[in-house]
Amino acid sequence: MSNFTYYTPTKVIFGRGTENQIGELVTAQHCKKVLIHYGGGSVKRSGLLERIGASLDAAGIAHIELGGVVPNPRLSKVYEGIDLCRKEGVDFLLAVGGGSVIDSAKAIGYGMCMDGDVWDLYDHKAKAASCLPVGVVLTIAASGSEMSDSSVITKDEGGIKRGYNDDLCRPVFAVMNPELTMTLPDYQTACGCVDILMHTMERYFTSGDKLEITDSLAEGLMRTVIANSKILRDDPHNYDARAEVMWAGSLSHNGLTGCGNSANDFASHRLEHEMGGMFDVAHGAGLAAVWGSWARYVLADCLPRFVRFARNVMNVEPGATDEETALRGIEAMEDFYRFMKMPTNMRELGIDPTDEQMRTMAHMCALATGGHVGSAKVLGEADMLAIYNMAK
Amino acid sequence: MSNFTYYTPTKVIFGRGTENQIGELVTAQHCKKVLIHYGGGSVKRSGLLERIGASLDAAGIAHIELGGVVPNPRLSKVYEGIDLCRKEGVDFLLAVGGGSVIDSAKAIGYGMCMDGDVWDLYDHKAKAASCLPVGVVLTIAASGSEMSDSSVITKDEGGIKRGYNDDLCRPVFAVMNPELTMTLPDYQTACGCVDILMHTMERYFTSGDKLEITDSLAEGLMRTVIANSKILRDDPHNYDARAEVMWAGSLSHNGLTGCGNSANDFASHRLEHEMGGMFDVAHGAGLAAVWGSWARYVLADCLPRFVRFARNVMNVEPGATDEETALRGIEAMEDFYRFMKMPTNMRELGIDPTDEQMRTMAHMCALATGGHVGSAKVLGEADMLAIYNMAK
Repeated sequence: MSNFTYYTPTKVIFGRGTENQIGELVTAQHCKKVLIHYGGGSVKRSGLLERIGASLDAAGIAHIELGGVVPNPRLSKVYEGIDLCRKEGVDFLLAVGGGSVIDSAKAIGYGMCMDGDVWDLYDHKAKAASCLPVGVVLTIAASGSEMSDSSVITKDEGGIKRGYNDDLCRPVFAVMNPELTMTLPDYQTACGCVDILMHTMERYFTSGDKLEITDSLAEGLMRTVIANSKILRDDPHNYDARAEVMWAGSLSHNGLTGCGNSANDFASHRLEHEMGGMFDVAHGAGLAAVWGSWARYVLADCLPRFVRFARNVMNVEPGATDEETALRGIEAMEDFYRFMKMPTNMRELGIDPTDEQMRTMAHMCALATGGHVGSAKVLGEADMLAIYNMAK
Repeated sequence: MSNFTYYTPTKVIFGRGTENQIGELVTAQHCKKVLIHYGGGSVKRSGLLERIGASLDAAGIAHIELGGVVPNPRLSKVYEGIDLCRKEGVDFLLAVGGGSVIDSAKAIGYGMCMDGDVWDLYDHKAKAASCLPVGVVLTIAASGSEMSDSSVITKDEGGIKRGYNDDLCRPVFAVMNPELTMTLPDYQTACGCVDILMHTMERYFTSGDKLEITDSLAEGLMRTVIANSKILRDDPHNYDARAEVMWAGSLSHNGLTGCGNSANDFASHRLEHEMGGMFDVAHGAGLAAVWGSWARYVLADCLPRFVRFARNVMNVEPGATDEETALRGIEAMEDFYRFMKMPTNMRELGIDPTDEQMRTMAHMCALATGGHVGSAKVLGEADMLAIYNMAK
């Protein structure tokens, strides 16, 4: 069991009607002018932005808006936000949306506190010294960005998707009303469920030591997400299931499910980043498309964990050998993905990269990770390419 | 499932040698003068205070000491601390110890930020507006006070033991090195394990709605604590088991295991407070002595939870009826207490209150709780007395 740091300062306000507390929450931050950052028009059409504006008005807090954040959020929008916030004297960023909007707000927050180019952080050429406070009204359960230290931005030219992790960007509060996720398209709900599972699996599949308590929390979380995702496929308005998945999404990526492990894996995420950058696929679907291939590729190096996963999470009948049991666990997860109408390879994801494109993705992934990624099995560029080929 | 707030800002630094980071941790708080607050001489004899002092010296931070905190920490020591800190211009409180020392430091922190008597908070006649920052070097896994919002102090005259809960007192950091708990007497280790279990059980046994994810986390935590407590009984120097119990202690009382439940119970804690105040018993042992009686008394009002507990935590064979299964779960927990050499009634705890003393405890408990306590079953003064009588 390894030493660890656990730091989750985000105040979570969870449940029905909680978005009406925005005014008092921002007041407690002693901030004067808010940028309301969002994506498409759905948060306008649903009346959510209006309710948030009314809550801020009632608290006497000025606010402006910047919408138009897209999935795989763009650096150009971040620059636009920084310019606007500087001009308007914004001192608080309120992200109303899911991971893309939150990550874009975090990037604006970093950019507001540095003289140089904010992309230097994502390009790992600079380190942040500060970040404007970010608050969240969550409308998509998926990224865990509402409590996490991570932010992922895509540079418009070349579709380069890069992440930057720092405690400075952890949101000061996150308002989570499960009702706000009820109108999501089924595909997006399913993508979110995959992303949530993956955030725990990326921490669970490691070859090193673990804390038993961390494993038991992680397994309980994964079982809960799978059971409630299935409920949501047929009953998307089920409040309790929405609540289970939403809270699991935050716990899955705030650090809790990795305490005491020697290293995280996150190879599936890094492999997906290149697919997302090149083909602009939905993040959760991209993860589902690559995970099974990754799992089979690394299985032999991490067999005890895969056996435990098969038994404690996927609840499969044991096979004749550990390897057979482990494979049954992987197949059970892929069956779950199919049940959720998620892809289990790139073809099903709707992309068909050429050999040249796959070599480029593997090369970009290796460049972005200093040549190696993963902990269940350390992967070099040739391994990455092999997994892309398996996932075709 | 009920609305909830989850707020755990404490930065946890966990693992071997982490106490040597104290200097940089206090530096990050921009504080200049530290009160090192502790209990008996063991932290001096072990060299821990010296290592902490050296770390502060290296960071150029001034420090003074105040030891002598006793279990069921006294208000008189809190007053002494407030006077000393005012005189010396202390701006940071470093608790080196377990729950008693941390709670005493929190009380000093409140007292430093108010004009009136700090006891008014514990007597629920006033509300805190602020608290000096508190940091922790944990040496006993038990109270969870290193991440919690709670502080319990005993007034010297009359042995009145009262708690005050406020987010303001949540420690800014908690340094947790499991090695520091290895030299604890077995009795104190066992008391700690009971206290940790009870902090989750007080949240688990409620009659209202719950989140499934919260239940599965709570059950995983309880199973882990029981399994590792047993290891520690015979192998107190087992690092991994110490680590499991220590981290469980924090998670058990930081709010995580109660998210989404309609109310906490905490009747066993309140009943024990009066025993602790009157007879100065060890908190964990007092909880063990009263829990089985409380459980049998409230069983009929909270049967489904007790059945689930029997099955998912205590792993008992189902009985012919739900009530029989539930009783087997209670008996299995009492068997565990006995295995840990903990009492399951007041006699085994070594106290023998008169009828008059029990009436006084029930009356004091009712006074302290506004007449009623509990959520699994709401208990009035007559119920409290009945449970004390059962626990005799």
